[in-house]
Amino acid sequence: MSTSRPAGVWLIGARGSVATTVVAGCAAMSAGLHPPTGLLTETTLFADCGLPGLSSLVFGGHDTLDCPLPKRAEELAAGGVLPHGLPAAVAAELTAADAEIVPGGPLPHDDRDEEELIEAFASDIRDFTARRAPAGTVVVNVASTEPAADGDTLPPSSLYAAAALRAGCPYVNFTPSTGLHHPSLAAPLARSGLPYAGRDGKTGQTLLRSVLGPMFTQRALAVRAWSGTNLLGGGDGAALADPAAAAAKNAGKERVLTDTLGTPVQGEVHIDDVPALGDWKTAWDHIAFDGFLGTRMVLQTIWQGCDSALAAPLVLDLARLMLRAREAGMSGAVGELGFYFKDPVGEGAAGLGEQYAALGDLAARLRVGEAR
Amino acid sequence: MSTSRPAGVWLIGARGSVATTVVAGCAAMSAGLHPPTGLLTETTLFADCGLPGLSSLVFGGHDTLDCPLPKRAEELAAGGVLPHGLPAAVAAELTAADAEIVPGGPLPHDDRDEEELIEAFASDIRDFTARRAPAGTVVVNVASTEPAADGDTLPPSSLYAAAALRAGCPYVNFTPSTGLHHPSLAAPLARSGLPYAGRDGKTGQTLLRSVLGPMFTQRALAVRAWSGTNLLGGGDGAALADPAAAAAKNAGKERVLTDTLGTPVQGEVHIDDVPALGDWKTAWDHIAFDGFLGTRMVLQTIWQGCDSALAAPLVLDLARLMLRAREAGMSGAVGELGFYFKDPVGEGAAGLGEQYAALGDLAARLRVGEAR
Amino acid sequence: MSTSRPAGVWLIGARGSVATTVVAGCAAMSAGLHPPTGLLTETTLFADCGLPGLSSLVFGGHDTLDCPLPKRAEELAAGGVLPHGLPAAVAAELTAADAEIVPGGPLPHDDRDEEELIEAFASDIRDFTARRAPAGTVVVNVASTEPAADGDTLPPSSLYAAAALRAGCPYVNFTPSTGLHHPSLAAPLARSGLPYAGRDGKTGQTLLRSVLGPMFTQRALAVRAWSGTNLLGGGDGAALADPAAAAAKNAGKERVLTDTLGTPVQGEVHIDDVPALGDWKTAWDHIAFDGFLGTRMVLQTIWQGCDSALAAPLVLDLARLMLRAREAGMSGAVGELGFYFKDPVGEGAAGLGEQYAALGDLAARLRVGEAR
Amino acid sequence: MSTSRPAGVWLIGARGSVATTVVAGCAAMSAGLHPPTGLLTETTLFADCGLPGLSSLVFGGHDTLDCPLPKRAEELAAGGVLPHGLPAAVAAELTAADAEIVPGGPLPHDDRDEEELIEAFASDIRDFTARRAPAGTVVVNVASTEPAADGDTLPPSSLYAAAALRAGCPYVNFTPSTGLHHPSLAAPLARSGLPYAGRDGKTGQTLLRSVLGPMFTQRALAVRAWSGTNLLGGGDGAALADPAAAAAKNAGKERVLTDTLGTPVQGEVHIDDVPALGDWKTAWDHIAFDGFLGTRMVLQTIWQGCDSALAAPLVLDLARLMLRAREAGMSGAVGELGFYFKDPVGEGAAGLGEQYAALGDLAARLRVGEAR
Repeated sequence: MSTSRPAGVWLIGARGSVATTVVAGCAAMSAGLHPPTGLLTETTLFADCGLPGLSSLVFGGHDTLDCPLPKRAEELAAGGVLPHGLPAAVAAELTAADAEIVPGGPLPHDDRDEEELIEAFASDIRDFTARRAPAGTVVVNVASTEPAADGDTLPPSSLYAAAALRAGCPYVNFTPSTGLHHPSLAAPLARSGLPYAGRDGKTGQTLLRSVLGPMFTQRALAVRAWSGTNLLGGGDGAALADPAAAAAKNAGKERVLTDTLGTPVQGEVHIDDVPALGDWKTAWDHIAFDGFLGTRMVLQTIWQGCDSALAAPLVLDLARLMLRAREAGMSGAVGELGFYFKDPVGEGAAGLGEQYAALGDLAARLRVGEAR
Repeated sequence: MSTSRPAGVWLIGARGSVATTVVAGCAAMSAGLHPPTGLLTETTLFADCGLPGLSSLVFGGHDTLDCPLPKRAEELAAGGVLPHGLPAAVAAELTAADAEIVPGGPLPHDDRDEEELIEAFASDIRDFTARRAPAGTVVVNVASTEPAADGDTLPPSSLYAAAALRAGCPYVNFTPSTGLHHPSLAAPLARSGLPYAGRDGKTGQTLLRSVLGPMFTQRALAVRAWSGTNLLGGGDGAALADPAAAAAKNAGKERVLTDTLGTPVQGEVHIDDVPALGDWKTAWDHIAFDGFLGTRMVLQTIWQGCDSALAAPLVLDLARLMLRAREAGMSGAVGELGFYFKDPVGEGAAGLGEQYAALGDLAARLRVGEAR
Repeated sequence: MSTSRPAGVWLIGARGSVATTVVAGCAAMSAGLHPPTGLLTETTLFADCGLPGLSSLVFGGHDTLDCPLPKRAEELAAGGVLPHGLPAAVAAELTAADAEIVPGGPLPHDDRDEEELIEAFASDIRDFTARRAPAGTVVVNVASTEPAADGDTLPPSSLYAAAALRAGCPYVNFTPSTGLHHPSLAAPLARSGLPYAGRDGKTGQTLLRSVLGPMFTQRALAVRAWSGTNLLGGGDGAALADPAAAAAKNAGKERVLTDTLGTPVQGEVHIDDVPALGDWKTAWDHIAFDGFLGTRMVLQTIWQGCDSALAAPLVLDLARLMLRAREAGMSGAVGELGFYFKDPVGEGAAGLGEQYAALGDLAARLRVGEAR
Repeated sequence: MSTSRPAGVWLIGARGSVATTVVAGCAAMSAGLHPPTGLLTETTLFADCGLPGLSSLVFGGHDTLDCPLPKRAEELAAGGVLPHGLPAAVAAELTAADAEIVPGGPLPHDDRDEEELIEAFASDIRDFTARRAPAGTVVVNVASTEPAADGDTLPPSSLYAAAALRAGCPYVNFTPSTGLHHPSLAAPLARSGLPYAGRDGKTGQTLLRSVLGPMFTQRALAVRAWSGTNLLGGGDGAALADPAAAAAKNAGKERVLTDTLGTPVQGEVHIDDVPALGDWKTAWDHIAFDGFLGTRMVLQTIWQGCDSALAAPLVLDLARLMLRAREAGMSGAVGELGFYFKDPVGEGAAGLGEQYAALGDLAARLRVGEAR
C-alpha cells in the first residue's frame, strides 16, 4: 500500500472518549509531539508490511450526540486523559474530523425502517470515502456497549455493520455489541469478501487475565476461583450499569478464563459505575489457587488505567491492519488479530503469548500481499 | 529409561523445608493421596519421555543440621505447609530418606581442606548410588542462599557441585548460590560431559514478572518503574536478611525484568525477614507504566504463597528431567529448562510463554533419546 | 455477679461455624490452651465488673441441622478455622453443648402456628436454664442471615426473639435479621424490662470502615466514592448469595459510612459466594477521595480473615456483658455496645474510637450495679 | 486576633513543593476558586477561635535554590499536583511571595559562623515582619529532611529554629530534622516563652497507622508484624534515599506503632526513591495479626496520594493555630497538636481519635484566650 495516500477511518461513536483520543493521538504522533507508545504497528513487528502511515489517516464517523470534538478533547484533558495543551496543539485535526461526523441513528422519533437506515449510513460512508479517502475506508465500532440483541430486530451496531458491508469497507467491532454477529448478516458478509475483526477490545483486566491464565496452566497450578471487580466512571461506566450491557461484556471476560484455564472456575465479575472516577478505571482481581499438595495460595492484581488511552492505540493498530488486509485481498474473519480482543472471531489461541506470535504470522501474510 | 528402576535424588540442604516437602510430597503422590498439582512432568507435555516414575525415586542428601525429617515434616504441617495427617501417612518414606542424610560441611572446626571435603561428599553420593539408585543419581542444591563467593575459596555450594561432578551425577542449582559457577570448576565441568541446570528456582514474584514483563513489551507499553517488596519468614527469610545473600537473590529478579523489558527500569526489590510469617511469603509489586500519549498507569500485584510448596514440584520435575537427560546422553547447560529458573544457564528466552515452548523442545529431544 | 455460678448462653444457629467456634474457644481458654485474643472482657477495661467467668458459661441452643458439634469442629479444624488438635482437646465440652442443642423451626411440614412455635422455643430455653444455668441465660442469634421480613408474618429470627422475651432472657442479635425489630414485638419487649443489643456483628470490612470513615472526616478530606467487594465461602457466602439477605447485610455497612462521613457517597458493596474460600473471607475496599485543591487520591484496603474467628470473641463478650447487664438491672437497648455492631440499637456514635469510649461508660455502670 | 490584620508565614524551604502548594492554595481559597478541603481551621471545630483569616496571610521564607515560585507552580501543575490553570490564576500572589524569599544557608563556600548565620536569618525574619506582618510571623520548616545531626555542630534546621526564637516567632517543625531539638537550644527556647510544635507532618502512611493501630488494640487483636514500603519521587524521594535521612523519618513512623500497639512489633519500613512517580507517593502496608485462638489474618493497605497536597493544608492549619496561640499567650510545646505529627512534642495520645479530641481542647483554650 502506498503509505501516504489518504485512508479513511470511520468511527461508530465518533464523539466518544475513545474516538476523541484516537483522533487527537493520531495527530499528536504525526506531528512528533508524542512517541507511539502502545502501537504495535509502529514496532519492528510490522516493518515493511505496507501499512498506511499515521499521517495519511483521515477520520469521520457517526454519532447520535453533537458535542464538538475540540470540546470533548478539552473535557478529556481536564480529566487527565489527554495531556494538557494537546487539544490546542491539534485543534485543526480535531476540527477537520468533527466536520466529517454525521448523525447516526436510529434517532428518537426516527421513522426510517432498517433498510433505509442501512442505506443512509452506507451512503454517508461512501460519500466520505469518495471525497477524502482514495485508499479506502475501514469502519470501527467504538460506541458504548449496547444491550444484547433481542429477536429479529437489528440492533444499531448491526445496522452500522451492515452499512459497512454495503459500502465495501472492512469492519472492526471494538465492543461486545452484536455488529456483524446477527444471523441476518451472515449471507451478505459471506458475499462481500471483506475482512472483519472483533469483538471487544482487550484493554485492561482481560489483558492481564490472558497472560495470568496461561501462567497457571503452564505451571500446572489449579485455579479454584477467579473473582473480579471493575470500577469505572465516564460514559462506559453508565452504559455498563445496565445489567444487559454488562452481561454482554462479562461473557468475553469469562471466555478468556475458560479458554486459558481449560475449565470454568468459580467467581463473579462486577462492573460498577463510579462517576467520581471519570474515565479512569480500577480493576481488582482475586485468584485463589491450589499449589502442591493442595496448599492454598492467592494472587491479587490491581490495575489502574485510563480506558480511552488503553483503547486508542489498539484502534489505530486495527484500523491500519484492516485497511492493509483489505488491500492485500484478505477476506473473512482475521483470526490472527485475537491479540486485540476479549472474544476473538475466527480460530486462535487464548493466551497472549501465542496471540502475539499470530500477529507475526499476519505480518508475514501482509508482506507477501505487498509483494504481489 | 525404565521408569521403575530406583533413581536417586541427592539433596543439598536435605533437612530444609523444600527438601522435606519434596520427600513427603513424592511419597504422598506415589500413594495416590494427592494429585500431582504443580508437576509438569505429570502432564501430557512430557508423556512418553521415559522419565523415572515418582515411585521409583529414592532420596538422600547432605545437611549440617540434624533435626530428623519426620520431625521437620510435623513442624511444616503445624505451619500449614504440609497437610495435616500427611507426616504420619508417609512416615516410612520420611524415615527412609532420613537414614540417607549425612553430615555436610565444612562444619565448625572442620580441618579438612577443599579437596578432602569434595572427596568426602563425592564418596557419600557414590555410596548412596551404589546401594540405592541403580538408575543413577541427580544432585540438587536446595540449601539456603549463601553470600556471594569471595576470592578463590570455594564456597560450600561449589564444594558440593564439585562432588556431584566427581560422582558422575547431573547437577541442578535451585538457589542463586555459586555452585558450578566458580571459575575453578569450569574445566572439570567441561570434562565431565554431564548435563546441568540452574540457577535459582522461579517460584513466585519472578514467575509473575516473567509473564507480566512480556505483556508490557508485547503491548508496546513503556514501563517506567518496577518496585517490589518480599516478606517471608522461615529459614529463607533469615538467610536473605544477610545483604550479601539478598544481593545474589535480587540479581536474578532484575535480570528477568531487564531481559523481558529490553531495558533496565527504575525500582528496587526488598526482601524482609518477617519470622511471624513462617514459611509463607507475600510479594508486592508496583509497576508504573506509560500508556498512549504518556498517560500514567499502574499495575500492582500481591502474591501470597508458600515457598516450599511452590518449589517442591519444580524440584521433582527437574530431578526427573535431569536423570532422563543424563541417560539420553545430554551434556552441558540444559538451556531448555529456563522455565524453572530466575537466572537460567545456557541460551533461552526470558518470557514464560517462550520458555514453556522450549520445554516442548526438550520433551521432543528426550523422546528421541528414548528411541535410541 | 458471682463469677463462678453457671450462666447459660443459648445460641440460635447452634451448629453453625460461629457457634462451634464459640463453644470450642471458650473451653480452650478456660483450660488455658489459648490466650483470650480478641476478647475485651478479658482486658482491664472490664476489670471488676463482675462478669461471669469463662469457665462458668454453659452452652445450648436451637438449630435446624443435626450435624454433631464435635464433627463440625473437626470440619472447621480441617479448614484452618480452629487449631488442629483443638477439637480433640475440648471434645468433652463440645459433646456437652451438643447434648443441649434442640431442633429449631419452623421445620418443613411444620404445622405449629407462631404462638405454638414461640412457646415451644421458650420452653426449651426455660428448661435449659432450670437445669444448667442458675445464674440465668442470654440468647444470642448467630444463625445465617435471613431475607428481609415480609408483611405481618414473624420471620424465624423473630420467633426466637419472642421466645427469649417470654423466657425472661436478655437477647443479642449478632445478625442483620429482624429479631426483635418486628412491630408486633415492640409491646412485649417494652413490658419485659429486659436488656437487648444488636444488630449485625462488626467483624471485618465494616470494622475497618468505622475507623477509616472518621479519619477522612477528621482530616476534612472529601470522600467521593467508597466501593467494596467481599468474597466468602462457607454457609455465610451461600446465604448472602440470596439478594434479599445481602440487601439486609449491606444496609448496615452503608449506614456506617453515611454516619461517619456525614453524607452518602457513591459506590456499591458486593458479597460473592466463593465456596473455594471456605470460612475465609477477603474484603477489598476502594476509597476515592479529594485532597487539597481537589487532588484525587485513593486508599485501598484488603482484609483477609476468618469470619468465625472474628465473630466468636465478640459473641463471648456480648454474652457475658448482657448476662451481667441483666443482673445489674439494666433494661432496653444497650446503646453502649455499638462497638460490636454494624447497625447498633440505641443512641451512640458511629466511629470506633467513640464506641470504645462508650464501652468504658458501660463498664462504669456495671461496676456501680455490682456495688448495689 | 483580628482576623484581617496581615500575619506572616515564613517558610524554611520556601521554593519546595510543599511551600509552593501552600502559597498557591491559600491564594486559591482566598479567591474562592477552591473549597478548603483538608483544612480543619475552616471547620466548625475552630469556629470563633480568632484565627487569622486565610486572606490575611502573607508569605516569605528562606531557600538555597532560586527557581521562581511561579515557575515551580507550573512544574507542579504539569505533574498533576496543582490544578491546571491555577498557577496563572494566582500569579500575583506567587510573585508577591517570591519577592519575599531570601537566600538561606549555609551556602557552599559560606564563611559565616553559626552566630552570624543565625543573626542573618533572624534579621531576614524581623525585616519581613516589620514590613509585611503587623500581626506577627510564624516560622515553619518545610525543607527536605536532613541527615541526623552529628556532634555539637548545629545542623541547618537548628540554625533556622534559633533564628525564629531570636526573632520572637512561634516555630513549627513539619519535618523530622533536628530544629529546636538540639541541646544548645534548650535554654534559649525556655527563655523565649514562645510556643512551638512538631515534629514531622503526619500525611499518609503514618496517618493510617494512627487509626489502624488503635483499632487492633481496642479489639484485643495481636499484631505480629507490620511491614511497609513507600515509593516516592520528587525532591523528597531523593532526600530520603540518603539512609541517614530515612532513618530520621522512620523513627517517627515506628513510634506511632509502638505507642498505639503498646509493644514493638516485627517489620521494616522502606522508603524508595522512584523518580518516575514525581510528587506522587504510594505506600503499601502489610499487617499480620492473630485473631481468636491464634488464627492468622492479614490486613493490607495501599495509599496513593500526593504528598504536597496532603501536607499543605496541615501547614496552613498549623501556621494559623500557632499565630493565634502566640497571641493568646501560650508558650512551650503545644502538645494538643499531636494530630498533625508523626512524633509529637509534648504530652499526648498516639491514636488519631484522641488526638482529634485534643484539638477540641486547644480550640477551647484559644476561645478563652480571645476572651481576655
